[in-house]
Amino acid sequence: MSEGLSKEKFIFLYRVNKIQRGEASWYKGKVMTIKEIENIALNAKKTSLALARSGTDARNNALAVIAKNIEANEDAVYRANALDLENSRSLVESGEISKATYGRLKLDENKMRDMIQGIYDVIKLDDPINEVFWRKKLDDDLILEKISCPIGVIGVIFEARPDVIAQISALAVKSGNAVLLKGGRESAETNKIIGKIVRESLCSVKDEFENAVNLLESREDVVEMLKLDNYINLIIPRGSNELVKYIQNNTKIPVLGHASGICHIYVHSDADLEMAKEICIDAKTQYPSACNAVETILINKDFPYISELLHALSFAGIEIIDNPEDWSTEYGDVKVSVRIVNSLLDAAGHINHYGSGHTDAIITQDPKEAEIFMHYVDSAGVFHNVSTRFSDGFRYGFGAEVGISTNKTHARGPVGLDGLTTYKYKLRGIGQIARDYCDGTKTFKHEVLPKDLA
Amino acid sequence: MSEGLSKEKFIFLYRVNKIQRGEASWYKGKVMTIKEIENIALNAKKTSLALARSGTDARNNALAVIAKNIEANEDAVYRANALDLENSRSLVESGEISKATYGRLKLDENKMRDMIQGIYDVIKLDDPINEVFWRKKLDDDLILEKISCPIGVIGVIFEARPDVIAQISALAVKSGNAVLLKGGRESAETNKIIGKIVRESLCSVKDEFENAVNLLESREDVVEMLKLDNYINLIIPRGSNELVKYIQNNTKIPVLGHASGICHIYVHSDADLEMAKEICIDAKTQYPSACNAVETILINKDFPYISELLHALSFAGIEIIDNPEDWSTEYGDVKVSVRIVNSLLDAAGHINHYGSGHTDAIITQDPKEAEIFMHYVDSAGVFHNVSTRFSDGFRYGFGAEVGISTNKTHARGPVGLDGLTTYKYKLRGIGQIARDYCDGTKTFKHEVLPKDLA
Repeated sequence: MSEGLSKEKFIFLYRVNKIQRGEASWYKGKVMTIKEIENIALNAKKTSLALARSGTDARNNALAVIAKNIEANEDAVYRANALDLENSRSLVESGEISKATYGRLKLDENKMRDMIQGIYDVIKLDDPINEVFWRKKLDDDLILEKISCPIGVIGVIFEARPDVIAQISALAVKSGNAVLLKGGRESAETNKIIGKIVRESLCSVKDEFENAVNLLESREDVVEMLKLDNYINLIIPRGSNELVKYIQNNTKIPVLGHASGICHIYVHSDADLEMAKEICIDAKTQYPSACNAVETILINKDFPYISELLHALSFAGIEIIDNPEDWSTEYGDVKVSVRIVNSLLDAAGHINHYGSGHTDAIITQDPKEAEIFMHYVDSAGVFHNVSTRFSDGFRYGFGAEVGISTNKTHARGPVGLDGLTTYKYKLRGIGQIARDYCDGTKTFKHEVLPKDLA
Repeated sequence: MSEGLSKEKFIFLYRVNKIQRGEASWYKGKVMTIKEIENIALNAKKTSLALARSGTDARNNALAVIAKNIEANEDAVYRANALDLENSRSLVESGEISKATYGRLKLDENKMRDMIQGIYDVIKLDDPINEVFWRKKLDDDLILEKISCPIGVIGVIFEARPDVIAQISALAVKSGNAVLLKGGRESAETNKIIGKIVRESLCSVKDEFENAVNLLESREDVVEMLKLDNYINLIIPRGSNELVKYIQNNTKIPVLGHASGICHIYVHSDADLEMAKEICIDAKTQYPSACNAVETILINKDFPYISELLHALSFAGIEIIDNPEDWSTEYGDVKVSVRIVNSLLDAAGHINHYGSGHTDAIITQDPKEAEIFMHYVDSAGVFHNVSTRFSDGFRYGFGAEVGISTNKTHARGPVGLDGLTTYKYKLRGIGQIARDYCDGTKTFKHEVLPKDLA
């Protein structure tokens, strides 16, 4: 989930810009040439194809080995993390990273346990690849099947959370993809040791699995990676709005994610006051910096309890902003825009214009009105009488969340493991040629077959 | 399907470049401001939401009215087409368009009949929107459903084929999308009259349907449209490789399509000679300029009949090219590259490196070897003992073909109507808030429900 603006993120972007202008010398970590990154991507591609060809058990086994080896090397991981904490202390003092970031950097026993458990959780998920969606008989002995397969090579860029690397590695191996990973430099040492354990574990299971997980160490490498649209099939940025926007604007590779989460709640004229209070307060205060937190509350002019609702929001500590210039602002804070609207369609119009297509809710007692709203609002999640905070891969029951997408193509909304897959068509024949079907010698049958027929 | 290089297409690109440099004054047709195009896209978006909310019958009825009105106005369409033919004659003489293009421009009785029948065929297809993929009970009275919906606004750019506009309009209306269309200027008059009939038909069915189909008249408008990534959700270019490449390189909007179709046939050591001959000749000669025609034939060094095969290809009129520089060339002509390879994996490696991820086939008597090939070759279509020419939406039984995609995200391979859809999540509750599930007051149930439960 994205979080609000912060100084450190602006510094990140500033640095990327500096790199592009060739002025940077501040970074730590090895910088590679574009040729080296290309080679990593090429080897990663081969690994992806090998993973795709391996059985579910082989990939799950690799994950179990990774989990066991992280557990067996906990002390080394803690030591690396302590080094990161030490190195980052001066950055907090100089204001380059926030105290909140510094706090997230620490890998304590709980986080370690969750990280390892997270890998076992991925093992339990259904295998997302080699699934036959359908099988069709185009003609006798001419069988077409549509089957899921990995996307290939995925670039993942995340900020200072040292536990993310294990999670991403697990999701990638499970889905047969290879990843190029770049974590925050604050967690460089922790990332390096976990990356090493992951690669050695993969290698111990099968040599050809090793290159499934590849670490980039410098931000300059990220800038180069974004140019490799011939080698890298998908970019997943996990971090601030600014990071995502920067990436969206600087690559031709498809980006899975959302730059901003400008979510709305529309309180219809017949809404239940208590429900409206509860949902609005939950959607704003339960986790204000979450991408699915509400940013604007639209209230129908005929709702009889406008002042009661606003009073309750204020009483809950929510600052109410009444400024049209903020209708596209993601506060990431306990602030909310309020606008009085004339009708449900006006509310939908406002949302489609100012929103980010993430998640928007209506509160009404009338299911018919709710359906109209859910039809006209063009967002990944359209909710009736429920907090916007429910739009989340785990709450949706996906088991894992790769990200939340506001794209209209590929994956939309909370994305589970299947967002890391594509499909291919396999056609098996006995020598058929197109000419026979063009000149009428043969005709297609197009019969649907059961999925489990070989 | 894409076709080979031709002078007219280079002229097209040259002109687009000229426009961008502000030097152009050659175009015909009304040029709009970017604000005007934005407004068209905004109105189109509203129409898409209205279409999505309408029932299957309403959209099918609109298609039937379009078909009837084209039929009733055949004479006017023929007259417009005659004008296009007259206007284009000088372009043939000056070499700006090829004779082949001029030939395609003519709308004869057969094409007219096919065009009208094509609309009726789209009516018969399953409705691709408002389909519930699954329904899940997150908790009591908290029901999540994943449902298909239109992508929204789609930009379609096609070259001189006057019948395409009716087909695209039908596919768009059926799938609840609105389109901004730009056809070849050679067929400007035919496009205009058909566009007018389509819009008047839509309007006669329901006012709010009118803006589902919008014509752009100048190539400058296309350049502006490609900038509107906030308004337009997908671009579909139908035309030459150069057109597609130009568009891919000049927009942030996702592009559905393929720039090139560099398809391969790998003849394994145990391949049946007669089958290899038949398939290779069909894949090259049956329609040489098709995107799924073979461009390179890879032959295993241990195949005992190499010279017999090559002789048969030559005898069939195929020019054999033996030049590594052409391994990424789409000939669009009766020419084929030939390379002798050491192994099946070398063949797969060659294909993944030099191919375009379109369609690649193996010829072998060994199903196990075929499976390895089909696993390692990372293309939209991987075929065993069958001509590459089968990769096509109609041959796959999709009823309609929106295009063939070599993308790894969204749609891959031949794309049917569902390539014009995305999905949204609808969540219906009774006032649930996230806090209760975070503090353990409530827990998720995540039960799968039948699709047809309300």
